[in-house]
Amino acid sequence: MTAPPEPARAPQVTRRGLLGLAGAGIAAIGAGAAGGFATARATENPTAAAASDVYEFTGAHQAGITTPAQDRVHFAAFDIVTDSREELVELLRDWTDAARRMTRGEPAGELGTTSGPYDAPPDDTGEAEDLSASGLTLTFGFGPSLFTDAGGEDRFGIAHRKPDLLVDLPHFPADALEDARCGGDIAVQACADDPQVAVHAIRNLARIGFGKASVRWSQLGYGRTSSTSTQQVTPRNLFGFKDGTSNIKSEETQAVEDQVWVQPEDATSTDEHDSAWLTGGSYLVARRIRMTIETWDRSSLREQETIVGRTKHTGAPLSGGDEFTEPDFALTGRGDEPLIDPASHVALAHPDANGGARMLRRGYNYTDGSDGLGRLDAGLFFIAYVRNPATQYIPVQNTLARDDLMSEYLRHTGSGLWAVPAGVPTGSTTGGTDGVFVGQALFEE
Amino acid sequence: MTAPPEPARAPQVTRRGLLGLAGAGIAAIGAGAAGGFATARATENPTAAAASDVYEFTGAHQAGITTPAQDRVHFAAFDIVTDSREELVELLRDWTDAARRMTRGEPAGELGTTSGPYDAPPDDTGEAEDLSASGLTLTFGFGPSLFTDAGGEDRFGIAHRKPDLLVDLPHFPADALEDARCGGDIAVQACADDPQVAVHAIRNLARIGFGKASVRWSQLGYGRTSSTSTQQVTPRNLFGFKDGTSNIKSEETQAVEDQVWVQPEDATSTDEHDSAWLTGGSYLVARRIRMTIETWDRSSLREQETIVGRTKHTGAPLSGGDEFTEPDFALTGRGDEPLIDPASHVALAHPDANGGARMLRRGYNYTDGSDGLGRLDAGLFFIAYVRNPATQYIPVQNTLARDDLMSEYLRHTGSGLWAVPAGVPTGSTTGGTDGVFVGQALFEE
Repeated sequence: MTAPPEPARAPQVTRRGLLGLAGAGIAAIGAGAAGGFATARATENPTAAAASDVYEFTGAHQAGITTPAQDRVHFAAFDIVTDSREELVELLRDWTDAARRMTRGEPAGELGTTSGPYDAPPDDTGEAEDLSASGLTLTFGFGPSLFTDAGGEDRFGIAHRKPDLLVDLPHFPADALEDARCGGDIAVQACADDPQVAVHAIRNLARIGFGKASVRWSQLGYGRTSSTSTQQVTPRNLFGFKDGTSNIKSEETQAVEDQVWVQPEDATSTDEHDSAWLTGGSYLVARRIRMTIETWDRSSLREQETIVGRTKHTGAPLSGGDEFTEPDFALTGRGDEPLIDPASHVALAHPDANGGARMLRRGYNYTDGSDGLGRLDAGLFFIAYVRNPATQYIPVQNTLARDDLMSEYLRHTGSGLWAVPAGVPTGSTTGGTDGVFVGQALFEE
Repeated sequence: MTAPPEPARAPQVTRRGLLGLAGAGIAAIGAGAAGGFATARATENPTAAAASDVYEFTGAHQAGITTPAQDRVHFAAFDIVTDSREELVELLRDWTDAARRMTRGEPAGELGTTSGPYDAPPDDTGEAEDLSASGLTLTFGFGPSLFTDAGGEDRFGIAHRKPDLLVDLPHFPADALEDARCGGDIAVQACADDPQVAVHAIRNLARIGFGKASVRWSQLGYGRTSSTSTQQVTPRNLFGFKDGTSNIKSEETQAVEDQVWVQPEDATSTDEHDSAWLTGGSYLVARRIRMTIETWDRSSLREQETIVGRTKHTGAPLSGGDEFTEPDFALTGRGDEPLIDPASHVALAHPDANGGARMLRRGYNYTDGSDGLGRLDAGLFFIAYVRNPATQYIPVQNTLARDDLMSEYLRHTGSGLWAVPAGVPTGSTTGGTDGVFVGQALFEE
């Protein structure tokens, strides 16, 4: 049998192709919108005019936040299993270099997958060898437990730099959290348009971290439920409704500054407490929200639309218009009843009901087999980035969990909050023993 | 905020668009290769010349076997929870009609997702409303327990039609099966290029089956590990190696007849026992194979290649050549040692070592979070179609589990065998109370 000439799975430069071109110089061309859209697309071959699917890892902010939401996610929360500050820094340095390489579509290490030396383990695991970069972004966050562990220990000498807002999320009404899906010292969000590329990235970070970091939990999401750019069509969640219509989009530059990025004035900077390292960063909230889809599927269309406050087909508010029409909560219909139920999801989640608070959401649909009782374990892996979780997430979730008609069909089973540092500056040298690394400001006095 | 005009996620006709065109007639054009390649692609608009991403549900054989392997799978095993033969037949009739609709990119039911009546549950759940058919195929199989349940009962009056080869798979060396991932009365393999379309299909079959069928277990696979057409590039598994190089391809028409489809001479037809209903069908073997990837990742490239018997980069046998060169097991190198280890995977799985037996494989990579011990729960969801599991699967797996060097890195955690009936004939009327349904011959005396 002979091999016919075959196109690669995606018509882009592959990892191996990139290696060959590396010597010719990789040119990154800025394509970011103004205001916080920090990602750029790089062309592997400076002479090729076609856009590639590479988002540069470096930039003022980490990629994977305002980057147009990719189709798939593999999210992992790691426990740091060393007590050595030097080893933690070494880990972050190695992870930064690998992240920068993998987001360019290169192997995780210099040697690559397959070219020896034969008597050592490969420094890339290989399953993404023939795949393009697929828009991979890797976004790192630090959890409260990295600063002070469960025993109250300051393992890494950074307890005094823990931001006041970085707390364990409070218990919300009807939470059904599973400890094995909560917390973690460091979170890594791997988003890509090919799930194999996202899984490959997390797996190689775990491989590199062996002895220093251990996967606490991870979650695969297969379908994005938010748009983060006006250039993207609004996707649907597993309730069958369009989700994220009023999400913060990267093009809303003022909203991104006001509601996503931690600003200089948010920091406390005293001798005892200094959180200035987080300026330019954000907070990442993750919630694994199981939907009781079998029950939902037996509710009427009228009830479903009442709960959401929008029509199922177009996503327009029940007060009329199209998907992007502002809901009119005052408008009443027959019997002087409001057209949008005040306990609907759209009414309770609206910024007007929450002191103007919005979030930049990046959620994904998940389906993790079944629960042993004949029901699919499926729902929403909620991810949101906010400047201030104390005003933009905690009160909103308290309201929704208590009053939202939708809550009857939701069960929160996983949870975490992480502080996401600013980006590794463009032009930094990564790798080696003195490379620049993500979150470096946290470790500099 | 106004909505900019946006392209749909895939540049194909959406479900809703299809509905509008249905009245104009849906023309199916045959595009199957000779010999068992039963799938056809339909154009929604007879005047449009562009190929669509629809595989017709009807045909001599079920689609989803020789169909070029799609990128994603959602596999579900159902328990039948009714004891009524009439209800089982009704279920199969309803499932057939829904499958035919969904594989065309239409909603699962006539009313669709979103158009009322408002006081009934929608007859489609909606999350695939804006997505194309995405190459969806739905393939149905009947397990041993459908014929005779755990208590030995012949619930549906079909025990005498159970093929002799349809048995519970034996215990293999080093099996670590979890009961909650094994068996099931009816299996449904949903393959599609968009995972949301595959999940949507299984979920709607579960919804339609409420009260008659209950999901016993299900498995999401995100990356195909086999090609079933010479037109497809060979993908990689989570060991980082190319997988399925010597898989049966649909273009091998004689091999497909000999090794995949159950032939008339395979049937027993006596008054007491009649398995002729399975002619034109196949047997589906599914195995959830966890890989100990953390251990694998710390083994040397030399060891990895020795275990597989091929090079990691090109997939060529260690006896030389390129990916599609036949391995030469007699060739020796230094010290007169064979270049390909006789205990390597390629040597033990080769047809020459197994009486000429081959399989048509359709496996997928899976990653299901972590195991609570800091390791990813990841591996291969193995799916194979064979004409005779007693010669083409059971002895091969016995050999591999006992002798294959690779077995050290594998743990089989899920398992099942199902008899896959022939296809619903092209031109059949489905739906209503007398529609043709998948597996109908099993219920006809």
